[in-house]
Amino acid sequence: MRVLGVDPGLTRCGLGVVDGALGSRARLVEVGVVRTPAGAEVADRLRAVADGIDAWLDRTRPDAVAVEKVFSQANVRTVMGTAQAGAVAIMLAARRDLPVGLYTPSEVKAAVTGSGRADKAQVGFMVTRLLGLTEVPRPADAADALALALCHLWRGPALARLRAAAPVAPARRPAGAS
Amino acid sequence: MRVLGVDPGLTRCGLGVVDGALGSRARLVEVGVVRTPAGAEVADRLRAVADGIDAWLDRTRPDAVAVEKVFSQANVRTVMGTAQAGAVAIMLAARRDLPVGLYTPSEVKAAVTGSGRADKAQVGFMVTRLLGLTEVPRPADAADALALALCHLWRGPALARLRAAAPVAPARRPAGAS
Repeated sequence: MRVLGVDPGLTRCGLGVVDGALGSRARLVEVGVVRTPAGAEVADRLRAVADGIDAWLDRTRPDAVAVEKVFSQANVRTVMGTAQAGAVAIMLAARRDLPVGLYTPSEVKAAVTGSGRADKAQVGFMVTRLLGLTEVPRPADAADALALALCHLWRGPALARLRAAAPVAPARRPAGAS
Repeated sequence: MRVLGVDPGLTRCGLGVVDGALGSRARLVEVGVVRTPAGAEVADRLRAVADGIDAWLDRTRPDAVAVEKVFSQANVRTVMGTAQAGAVAIMLAARRDLPVGLYTPSEVKAAVTGSGRADKAQVGFMVTRLLGLTEVPRPADAADALALALCHLWRGPALARLRAAAPVAPARRPAGAS
């Protein structure tokens, strides 16, 4: 299975693709960052992020996409760029019929380091070790994107099985109702 | 000038298109709401909102799009759907090279009622009167989308002139820098 991890942001949007299967070592396919200038209009920045993500989806052809979930206790001003870039990533993946996994930062940290309170350095160290790299991917957003992809590789199949086994919760409000 | 107003949301995304020019009465072209079921996955909901907005852009061919700006003092949990659906609307408009205006709820209220603290009923009443309609558009999200479009019709040209006259603020961090 090939997973694209997206650490969403407007200034830096981390993107990382890994190949792997349960029980075998994961392999780095590609890692990088889409940047947009802080002084540009939000519309131009979101468009640049969307174009970057679409180019990665075209080139790397992942089977699934993992996106960081916004931490609901955070401050609106600081998480707005994350929420906006994340929504664009989720939507572009959904339009390609790719399954999308959403994970909180602590779920990602726990998946790759064993602790939900690990710091950036620990995440970078473990991503480097788990993928057998010779150096830590930079910037931190790139390493975080790889951590998201690894988290989905290991948690995604279990979540999909749970979802298939459990009855779907009924919508609180049916589509088309007022 | 034709403007599409978007009152973003996942449960109900209000869409309203108006034609108008400074000094003449604005005319309603179309108004409605895209709904997605509250129990569905975020990825499916964002995709449905994106498909709905794209269909409106294809059909109504606006010259500009006005989207509600998320109020930065709000609670993250309550504004997340607004931020996500708004980001999708902004990005889809930008990909079509349409100018995008972002307005806070109080800017919109002030534009159509004269007061930034007007309530929903007042906004609905004024939208009905300004567009010469026989009844208030329902639900409130539909009326709010029309109010956004009217706000842009009246404020957009002035903002564009200001932007053309003023030197562009330099980016705090140039594109491509780390």
